[in-house]
This record gives sequence, C-alpha cells and structure tokens, in this order.
Amino acid sequence: MSGSTYGTVFKIATWGESHGNGIGVVVDGCPSGLALTEEDIQVYLDRRKPGTSKFATQRKEGDLVEIISGVFEGRTTGTPIAMLVRNTDQRSKDYSEIANYYRPGHADLNFDVKYGFRDYRGGGRSSGRETIARVAAGAVACKLLQTLGVTLTTYTKSIGPVDANPKCFDPEEIYRNPFHMPDPVAAGEAAAYLQECMHNQNSSGGVIECVIRNFPQGAGEPVFEKLDANLAKAIMSIGAVKGFEIGDGFAAARATGLDNNDPYGIDASGNIRKATNHAGGILGGISDGSDIIFRAAVKPTPSIAAPQMTVNRSQESQEICIKGRHDPVIVPRAVVVVESMAAVALIDMLFQSMTSRLDKITEFFK
Amino acid sequence: MSGSTYGTVFKIATWGESHGNGIGVVVDGCPSGLALTEEDIQVYLDRRKPGTSKFATQRKEGDLVEIISGVFEGRTTGTPIAMLVRNTDQRSKDYSEIANYYRPGHADLNFDVKYGFRDYRGGGRSSGRETIARVAAGAVACKLLQTLGVTLTTYTKSIGPVDANPKCFDPEEIYRNPFHMPDPVAAGEAAAYLQECMHNQNSSGGVIECVIRNFPQGAGEPVFEKLDANLAKAIMSIGAVKGFEIGDGFAAARATGLDNNDPYGIDASGNIRKATNHAGGILGGISDGSDIIFRAAVKPTPSIAAPQMTVNRSQESQEICIKGRHDPVIVPRAVVVVESMAAVALIDMLFQSMTSRLDKITEFFK
Amino acid sequence: MSGSTYGTVFKIATWGESHGNGIGVVVDGCPSGLALTEEDIQVYLDRRKPGTSKFATQRKEGDLVEIISGVFEGRTTGTPIAMLVRNTDQRSKDYSEIANYYRPGHADLNFDVKYGFRDYRGGGRSSGRETIARVAAGAVACKLLQTLGVTLTTYTKSIGPVDANPKCFDPEEIYRNPFHMPDPVAAGEAAAYLQECMHNQNSSGGVIECVIRNFPQGAGEPVFEKLDANLAKAIMSIGAVKGFEIGDGFAAARATGLDNNDPYGIDASGNIRKATNHAGGILGGISDGSDIIFRAAVKPTPSIAAPQMTVNRSQESQEICIKGRHDPVIVPRAVVVVESMAAVALIDMLFQSMTSRLDKITEFFK
Amino acid sequence: MSGSTYGTVFKIATWGESHGNGIGVVVDGCPSGLALTEEDIQVYLDRRKPGTSKFATQRKEGDLVEIISGVFEGRTTGTPIAMLVRNTDQRSKDYSEIANYYRPGHADLNFDVKYGFRDYRGGGRSSGRETIARVAAGAVACKLLQTLGVTLTTYTKSIGPVDANPKCFDPEEIYRNPFHMPDPVAAGEAAAYLQECMHNQNSSGGVIECVIRNFPQGAGEPVFEKLDANLAKAIMSIGAVKGFEIGDGFAAARATGLDNNDPYGIDASGNIRKATNHAGGILGGISDGSDIIFRAAVKPTPSIAAPQMTVNRSQESQEICIKGRHDPVIVPRAVVVVESMAAVALIDMLFQSMTSRLDKITEFFK
Repeated sequence: MSGSTYGTVFKIATWGESHGNGIGVVVDGCPSGLALTEEDIQVYLDRRKPGTSKFATQRKEGDLVEIISGVFEGRTTGTPIAMLVRNTDQRSKDYSEIANYYRPGHADLNFDVKYGFRDYRGGGRSSGRETIARVAAGAVACKLLQTLGVTLTTYTKSIGPVDANPKCFDPEEIYRNPFHMPDPVAAGEAAAYLQECMHNQNSSGGVIECVIRNFPQGAGEPVFEKLDANLAKAIMSIGAVKGFEIGDGFAAARATGLDNNDPYGIDASGNIRKATNHAGGILGGISDGSDIIFRAAVKPTPSIAAPQMTVNRSQESQEICIKGRHDPVIVPRAVVVVESMAAVALIDMLFQSMTSRLDKITEFFK
Repeated sequence: MSGSTYGTVFKIATWGESHGNGIGVVVDGCPSGLALTEEDIQVYLDRRKPGTSKFATQRKEGDLVEIISGVFEGRTTGTPIAMLVRNTDQRSKDYSEIANYYRPGHADLNFDVKYGFRDYRGGGRSSGRETIARVAAGAVACKLLQTLGVTLTTYTKSIGPVDANPKCFDPEEIYRNPFHMPDPVAAGEAAAYLQECMHNQNSSGGVIECVIRNFPQGAGEPVFEKLDANLAKAIMSIGAVKGFEIGDGFAAARATGLDNNDPYGIDASGNIRKATNHAGGILGGISDGSDIIFRAAVKPTPSIAAPQMTVNRSQESQEICIKGRHDPVIVPRAVVVVESMAAVALIDMLFQSMTSRLDKITEFFK
Repeated sequence: MSGSTYGTVFKIATWGESHGNGIGVVVDGCPSGLALTEEDIQVYLDRRKPGTSKFATQRKEGDLVEIISGVFEGRTTGTPIAMLVRNTDQRSKDYSEIANYYRPGHADLNFDVKYGFRDYRGGGRSSGRETIARVAAGAVACKLLQTLGVTLTTYTKSIGPVDANPKCFDPEEIYRNPFHMPDPVAAGEAAAYLQECMHNQNSSGGVIECVIRNFPQGAGEPVFEKLDANLAKAIMSIGAVKGFEIGDGFAAARATGLDNNDPYGIDASGNIRKATNHAGGILGGISDGSDIIFRAAVKPTPSIAAPQMTVNRSQESQEICIKGRHDPVIVPRAVVVVESMAAVALIDMLFQSMTSRLDKITEFFK
Repeated sequence: MSGSTYGTVFKIATWGESHGNGIGVVVDGCPSGLALTEEDIQVYLDRRKPGTSKFATQRKEGDLVEIISGVFEGRTTGTPIAMLVRNTDQRSKDYSEIANYYRPGHADLNFDVKYGFRDYRGGGRSSGRETIARVAAGAVACKLLQTLGVTLTTYTKSIGPVDANPKCFDPEEIYRNPFHMPDPVAAGEAAAYLQECMHNQNSSGGVIECVIRNFPQGAGEPVFEKLDANLAKAIMSIGAVKGFEIGDGFAAARATGLDNNDPYGIDASGNIRKATNHAGGILGGISDGSDIIFRAAVKPTPSIAAPQMTVNRSQESQEICIKGRHDPVIVPRAVVVVESMAAVALIDMLFQSMTSRLDKITEFFK
C-alpha cells in the first residue's frame, strides 16, 4: 500500500503531515545540468500561500523551502533532489476537538477504517499542506519544461456560478487578483459571491483550466499510458478534485462528429496544422502538437462553520460547527498545484517518449 | 516507452491490432482458485459485439476467446492467464485508401510522428478492436469482484442531447435496447437522433455511467494512488474518452459546501451511513462504503462519411469522405469496456489495500 | 502478486505452462523500425532445443514461433510484439504419477502451499519450458543491441569439476559441442563426467559466463537500479540459478585493494582505458566502457532417476525414482536463457540512461 | 532515470550525499499500528558507526536520526515515514584534491560520463554514507518482521583468506568483536591480517552471510519476481558488492543432484520438513519454510594509500596516493546494510504474497 510515489522515469516521493515536523519531497530522475536554486522553488510555493487576500486563510504559513540534496554549485547533479519545508505555524489545540467526530466531506472516517486510527491533527495526510510537496516537485518539472520551450498557463475558469469570459482573457490579470481569474470583471463577481458564501458560513467550488504550449508532438504511450490518462490521474490525485476533462471534454459528449473533429490543413510555413482544437491537444492518447488544454473540477471546501449533522467516535449523532480558519474556496490555492502535477506528469511522459523510434535511439548513442 | 501494461499487483498486458493475427491479453496476478471458463469471458466479449442493431457496425466479428494458460480443471492456478481472440473478418483493402491521408479525429498523424510510420490497417493499435483485450481482462476482474459480493452496473446515461431519466431507471432495460440506456423512452429518442445523424453522414458522442455496489471501505492509497485517480486513468485510457468525473463531478464545482457535503448518521442497524452521496463513494481518495458512481464522456465517432478537409502524406490538402463500416456512435460498445477497466482498477486497488494495517497482516499470517 | 512481467521502459510479460496450450510473451516497449522476422526469433529458440546430443532430453520439441502482433512489413511498429509457441510434444501421462508426491529440489510443495494446489503437469510454470518466452523476448533485445553495436558471448564455463581453460578459448567451439564450452578439451572431459553421472542416475551443476562488448558507458541508475543489481535479478530469476557474480565476484572477497582496483591509463587513441578489468565492466553500478563479464551458478538437475526419499500428498514418507526424460545437466540449455535475460535487462537499463543529462535531452528534442 | 526508489508495495526512496546537508529516506507503505521510535532506528544506525575499533574510520559521525513524519503517539499511522540524518562531521577540503583525478575502483569517471560532471565531495551518492538511508529503512522493515516472528542474523563469514569456522558459531560473538565475525578465533586472525594490510597501505574484501528464520512459506512470485531474484537485486545494489549466492550457491555448480537435492520427510510434529537445506530456503523462487541463507561478496576498499596509476581530468596519466581516513575493510560496516536491504526486500515480497489465493483474500475481506 504505497501511494506516496508518482512517476516512472521521473519520480517524486512525498511525505509529511500538516502538524508533523515538516513536509518534503524527493525528486528522483531529474537530469543533471539544470540550473536550480531555492528561490526557483520558493516562487512556486508562494503561489500557494494564504494570507494574500481577505478571502484566504488567516493562518500564516512561512513555508520556506530548503534543498537538502541533489544540487551542487547551482546545478542539479542527476542525483535525487530532496526538499524540505518545516511547519512553523501550528496550533494543535485548534484541531483537538475534531479528534472526536467525523467531519462531513473529509476523509476522517475513511482513515479510521483504513488504518485503524487517524492522526487528527489538521487533517493529517489529507490536509491541504501536503500540496507543498507537490508544488516543490512541480517547480523542478516546470523548470525542465521551460528549458525545452514548454509553457504552462493555469488559472481559475469559474468559481461557483461565476465564469471567466474567454473573450476577456488577460494573462497578466491571473496573478493580479486573489482568485487567479484571467478576467477582472469575473474576479469582481466572484468576490461578491464569496462574500455572500462566507456570510452564510458556506463555501464554493470552481473549475481550474490549464493550457500547455509548445509541448512536443508524440508523447504518450498507448494503450494504458496515454498522455491524457496520466494527466487525469495526476490531477485527480489532488485533494478536492472531482472531475477532469480534456479539450471539449463533457461538451464533446453532446456534440457531433462534424462539430468535434479537428480538420488538418497546411499553414503558412508549410507545416501540418489543425484548424481547430476540440481535441485539446491529445489524440489517441498522444500529444498532437496543438495546445494541450484540460480542466479540473474542484468541490467546495468541506470545512464550513454552518451547522452540520455528523457522527462522533462513540457512534452517536452530533451537530457540529467547524471552527478554525478555513478558506471559503479551495480553487485559487489549487491553481499552482494543478500546474505542478501537470508538469510532473508531462516530464515523465516526455522522457518515456524518447525510446519510441530506433533511428532516434541510434542517433542518441552515436 | 511501454504502455501496454496496466496495474501494480493485478496486472494486465495487452497486444494486437485490428488487422494483425489476433488480439490478446495476459492477466498476471489473478489469485488461484477462481472458477473460470471461456464462457465466462465470452459473455463479456459478446457485449462488445457489433451487428446487434442497425445502428451498429455491419462488420461481423467472430471474437471467440481461447484461454491459453493459467486455468487447470476449471480453476485459476495463480499463474498468468493468457487469452487470445483471432481476427477473422478483415478486409485490408477497406483500409488501403486511408494509408495516404490523415483522418481528422484519429491518431494517424500522431502515430506517424511518434513511430516514424504507421500500420494503417484499420487504425492499428488505436482501433476499437484493442478493447477486446481490455474486456477479456475485465471479465476476470469482474468475476473476482463478484466472489467478494461487489457488483458493477454500467449504462449509457446520454447520447448527444438525449438524457436517460434517472426517475425511469430500469436495470433490465439496459441490455434490452441496443444503446444500453436504462430508460426505454430515452432509448427511443436516441434512436431517432442517431437516424438523423446517419442521414447527415454524421456521428454523436455520449456519456457512460457506472455504479459500483458493496465495494469495501478503505481502498485507495493517498496521495498519488487514490482510488478515483486510478479509476480516472483506467477510464481515460479508453479510446474516445475525453472526460471523467466522480460523484457530482463538474456539478460540484458550481455547488456550495452545504450542497456537496454528505452528512453522517446512524442507520437502523447501528452502522455509520452517509445520508447523501455527492462524493460518489470516494473521499480523500479512499472508498467510503457508499456506492461508487462515476461517469465517462465519450466523443463522437471521428470516422464519418461527410466530407472533411484533411492533409495527405504528401502534405497536400485534400477533401475526404471516409468509407467503410462505422458506427454513428461509440458509446454503446464502450459500456462494457468502461465496466472492464473499472473492474481491473478496483481489484488492483483492493489488493493493495490489504497491507494498510499491521493487525490485519499479523492475523493473515497466523 | 504479479511476477510474470519484467522491466520498466522495455517490458516483457510471459505466460504458459509446459502442458497447457502454449508458451508466449509480449514485448512492450520495443521501438519502431527494427527489422524483425520469425526467423530472427527461431534462431535463438533453436539454441534451447534438446535432442541435439545424447546428453540432452529425448523429448522432441517443435517450438516454432509465431509473431502475432507488433510487426508490419518486416519492421517493428512500436506496438507490443506478441509471440506464441504452441506445445506439440506433450505426454500428460508421463507426469501423472508426480501429482501425488513432492519432488525434492523442485517447487512442487511451495506451489501447493502458495496457491492451494498445483498444476502438476510437467512442472507447470516452474518447468524449463517457460524459458521459451524469455528467449523469444531476448531475441528481440539482442537484435536491438546489435543495431547499437553491442555483442553478447555466452558459454558454459564449467560442468561439475570440469573447467574450460581460459587460455584455450575458441568462440567457434561454443556451438560445435553440445555443452557450449569454448574449450574442446574441457568439452570432452565434461562428456565423460556426464556419462558417469547418467550411469549413476545422477546429475551435475555448472557455471555459465557471459561477456558483453561495446556496451555504452553510463548505464545503470544508482542507488537501487544499478546495472549489476538488475542483471543479478534478471539472471537469478532463471530457474536453477543459485548464484550471480560480476567481474572477479567472490574471488574479489579474498583479494586486496591493489589486486582488485583497475588502474586508469590513456590508450593509443588518447582515450581513458582501464588497464585491467577486475570490476567486470561495472563500477558504482554504472557501466564503465569495459567488457561486462558476469557468471551464473546453475544447480544440478533435480529430477534424477536415483532413489530419493520424499513425502507424498497424504503426508507419508515415500521413496521415489523419477522417471521421464530429463537432462543430466541443465547448463547447456540455459546458456541462451542467460544471454536472453541479460539482453533484456541491458536494453531496459540503456533506455533509462537516456534521461541522465539535460544537454542530451535538449539535443534530442530539437 | 530514477534509481533511488526500491520496492513495489513497501517502497523506500532515499536521497542525500556525504557532503550535502543530510541523508534521508521515506518509507512508503509501512502499515499502521507498528510501534516505532527514533531509538528503534538509532540502534541499527549505530551498527554502521565507525570509530568503534582501531580498524574503523577515524572520521567521527554523529548520525542522529530524526523521524519527521508518519508516526503519531508512538505508532506508525500508515502514512509515509520520513527520516533524516544531518551531516555533521564533514571536511570538504579532505576531498578537494580528488576533484581532479579519477580514483581507481570508484565510480568517479562513470559519474562524469553519465551526468556530465560530478559532485566530488566525498564520493557523493556513491559514498558509504548513503547506506544510512538504507539502514534507517531496514530498521523499520526489521521491526515489522519481528512482529511476525521473523529474525535475521547477519555476520561476516570471511575477511580475505580468514574464514569463520561454522563449527565455532557463537551469535553473541558477532557484536563483541569489531569485525562482526561469529568466531572469536577467526576474528583474531582477521585482526592480524588487516594489520598487515594497513601496514602495506592496502585493503581487503570479505563475505557476509545472512540467515533468516521463521519466514513464512510461499513468498516470491514466479517467474521474474522470485524471492531470491529480489534479494539478489537488493543486495547487489549495495556498493562494493560483487556477488550474491543462495544456499550452496556456486558450490552447487560443482555438485551432483544427489548432493544438492533436499529430501522431504515428516518431523516429530507431523509437519513436512526438509532433511537438509542446500537450497538455502528458496525453491522455484518461493520461500520453502526452511532458513533462508544467502551470502554477499564484498570487494576490497578501493581507497588505499598505496601508490596507484590513474588519469586526471586533463586526461593525463598520474600517480596518486589517496589520503583521507579510510577503512582497510568495508565488510563489518556492511553487515547491517545487508541485513537492512534483505529486510526491506522480504517485507515487500511478503506483502505481495498475500494475494496468491482467492480463499485467503475472501477470508480477509469478511
């Protein structure tokens, strides 16, 4: 039962709970020669950081990363890169009450049944803080992708009923507003909607979209290790994610063949180009050279202050109001987590694609 | 670059193309003692079979399975179970024309780029026939699940704009109509809709839903080997699937915490039970004892007779009309494939869950 | 509990028992573009074939291989290559007697305990015939290695107390004598020794040596996926192998540092070269550019006609004499099996080494 | 190219170099409920510690382990267990000289070629200190094995030409003398031999033997995941190990069937028992209920003070004398490393064996 490792040739192993000594990750399989500093990682971790808006958690988290191994004189050595973030702002007593009951929408009861007991402190391994490890690893993967000219742009597409308008897309806006929406008007509407949620002691879900540009064609291994299948697993492994779709996704289910097929044509440079991209950049499980576009559905924060019925550890019904400091929406914090997991999956699949053709392998070993 | 193997402790390896000698699979990790016959497998394969309605492919496929190894005196031995289905009804000349151009919505161009050339015969490894191997393996997994009291019910939830009405759900209806919809009225509407599609030389997408009952609580391995993450990968690996969601899925993204949380209560027998099931049976990546409910979005059949623009192998634009015998909708054939892949993933995860608790391990080895 | 798959990026999955319908293998991860025919595989399978000397099993085995998938117009497509060998010469009644007792030196009792019963026919999955699958896969791996200029030379180094003299090494002799010894004098002595064994209804063990030339430097992944560690696992997985050593092996345990270190020097072409090769071509788990040299210790054939004490299925002591047709020595048949497993491991590790350096990866994707 | 992870269901991932910030490991897949403290781990780490005899390295290493995650109120939670040992006694300048040349018998040149450069400090990832991570993980595995009644006894069987006498075996002696030999007379002879080696600025190899008692019958997965094949890989992955053998090992190659077969009989309690154990506890790759006995051949310490010829980074020949503080023999320090890796492999294989029989699985899930 080992679930804390991800990847085949580019592997990450994570550990740590929100109220243990620290959160960490080992990246095993990063090639040598990549320029890497703690600052490179910190930039990504800071995108997770709460406390940047009145809608985010009041809990202040230092989250300073330390690279323990795998880097020498500013470059990766090819050996495992271990990174550690010590937990600083913890209040065990904040969570002592929940030791006694099972919070709806959380994994409390499942952990009790699976392991025989649980570490109740702050949600343990299923808390949001385990994403620190994912993001640290994702930062390394993103840097690798950058050296190959690949970029990822990830943002909040919707919060509750509020959708970003694709016609008003401004990449600069993504990190100007605390919801990471690329449309300032929608961001304003989301603010109002969340204000109302908080007033009602409630929370909201949302959708995150990720666009990957310049990813090489030909990555993905039929039939089971398809690129979209691996992206789906990586993204669905993020807490609170309840759906994944690529290209037109569930809308394709309602479409016709003529709607959905992307015709091929020759562009100005004489290259084969698809005229449209309903496929979302992946066909037959293999990257097709177009932008890869996928979306993740994030459920509402389960920890809400409003009264809820539940059961306690003595198997008695009980009404609870979850105290503590919780975001009314997970989505903005999850944006960098989605980007990180996508990057890790993409690198792992890109590396595996290198052995598809004998002529290229022979060339490599000359 | 090996993508034809799936699983960690319950593994399947598949091979074969639609116009090679045959399609096959090895199931490696099936425990000994399971009663298994070729008939058990054939039942599942027959659910794939076209030619059962005027809407399905005219191409007659025998698809008789042969168990080559792993079974002795009617029971599995614990050694690998190899199963083979010989290809009988093939017409290479049907496909010779497509050797020259890249069909929109298919993986033709991707295969050319990835491998340097492609086996154009009938779509090769990305054709629908590779699903034979998945279904044969799924039949074994389903039988294992049955011995543990777990059932899977899979059906077409929608075809194009036609939705099955959950209030008119009749499990018997699923295999009475050729669309495998559990609502006879919707099945009739779908028939009309597809008639129109065919008339327009077009095709339709749809959604498949799967409900798993009595699956033990506690399977799924945080953080990366979550049960829903593994189901997502297994289902998204099926050709033409463009989206996966569990429980309320993308609808949860538009909901609030009070809408989405499933409160706990005590039922008549004194067991803890969730009052609702917006989570779809999985919380924190671990099965929670409720029904597991997920959906797969299937895109429209890309091979349509209507004229389409594309490019040929000499890099020239060309208009094509794809001849040959193609279904206007993939969804009904994919129902058993979705059920098969789900079963394989569930068994693999269930087996891995056996080592979660030391007390249970100690008990096992007494 | 899946043990019939080997490899990470170049994978093989095998199936079949000696008295089932056939033996087979899928090679998953062979790059496209390799010229491959059934004849290429048959050559390797024929090196397994008994009946080529009076010392080898009388049981005639046809062993004709059929490639079912993965090859098109004489070249691999990049999709899985399935190969099947039907069992022809089987006599179930030869083995019915052993259904009742546990043969010493065989896995009979272990299989009973592990699986609850066993397929007694001819040793089932632990019989020598499962090596057909290994050799078929090895033939593909060997062909890949050849295109990269790598050669493997494998031979019998000793049978019982008879050692081949390294000073009389003649590669042509290896396949001239039925023992595959590279020294004709030793081959003669081995013949006499085995005659004596057979006369005593006894059997002999031996050692196989393999020399790999021109293997690229830099393959092998510290710390757990070292090249020698992987070779050890691959070779030790072969039935009857009880030891593995590389370079000076166990002799190094008795040596001093000055004896064992290989000093570096500059050769005529100006390249760094080791003056000696006590290391056997691998240092720190990574190939060092010298010849890779390893040895496998093969135990004596356990099935002997001489009387032995054992226990039957009713838990009673019983004296047995194993009838049937058995070789007095396994070693000559295992030579091609050792070469095959080495080739598979080498290709898998070579492919994994392609992602060690960012500069080479960047070059690859230009 | 990820090589720092080991295992399938019980996984370990290690990181760290001798002169980076620290060495660490994550154990992923340890079941919940195991009592575990830092002291449990420290006991094993201390068995590694140099400075306990005049023959061991003068370099003082604190090596205090910290458990960062996975343990709560003295018991494992089922979540990953991360352990960290900070490096304290480092002298970078000790190693600056070796940055310029390639030490014979070390992986220096291989690392340069594989990664494009190397972290020369103290041997980096191929130094002896990476074994800290293995031993920390091994301590957890050993504790798990103990709860199941399994014991491991590991010791030095020989140093150079000095063999421990099996007839004078005293388990208490193993940790009384600094060579960990179970025979005090041999320990004395070894001391004299090593004194001589040191006087000659030379080093010695040796053999380590490990005996595992009470390991359940039936673990090991034919055909590729055999128990001995996995032990071989785990042990051969340890630095300086050049050979592995089980049972009679290479001696079986010189034996006959009558010598080597272990006859079965019924013991006093009415159980089936082998009369001898030439097999070393594993037949057909599956544990047979007898003691599992294997040996590892360890080469002499390559770092010796005696003059050696080598090549420097400017590709010039150069004579060197390696300064610094080095043991004349690796073997005693490696004893606990061999035990650790064996324990990790055994637990991983034992866990995988739980799904061999459907009847046992059905029982488990009742």
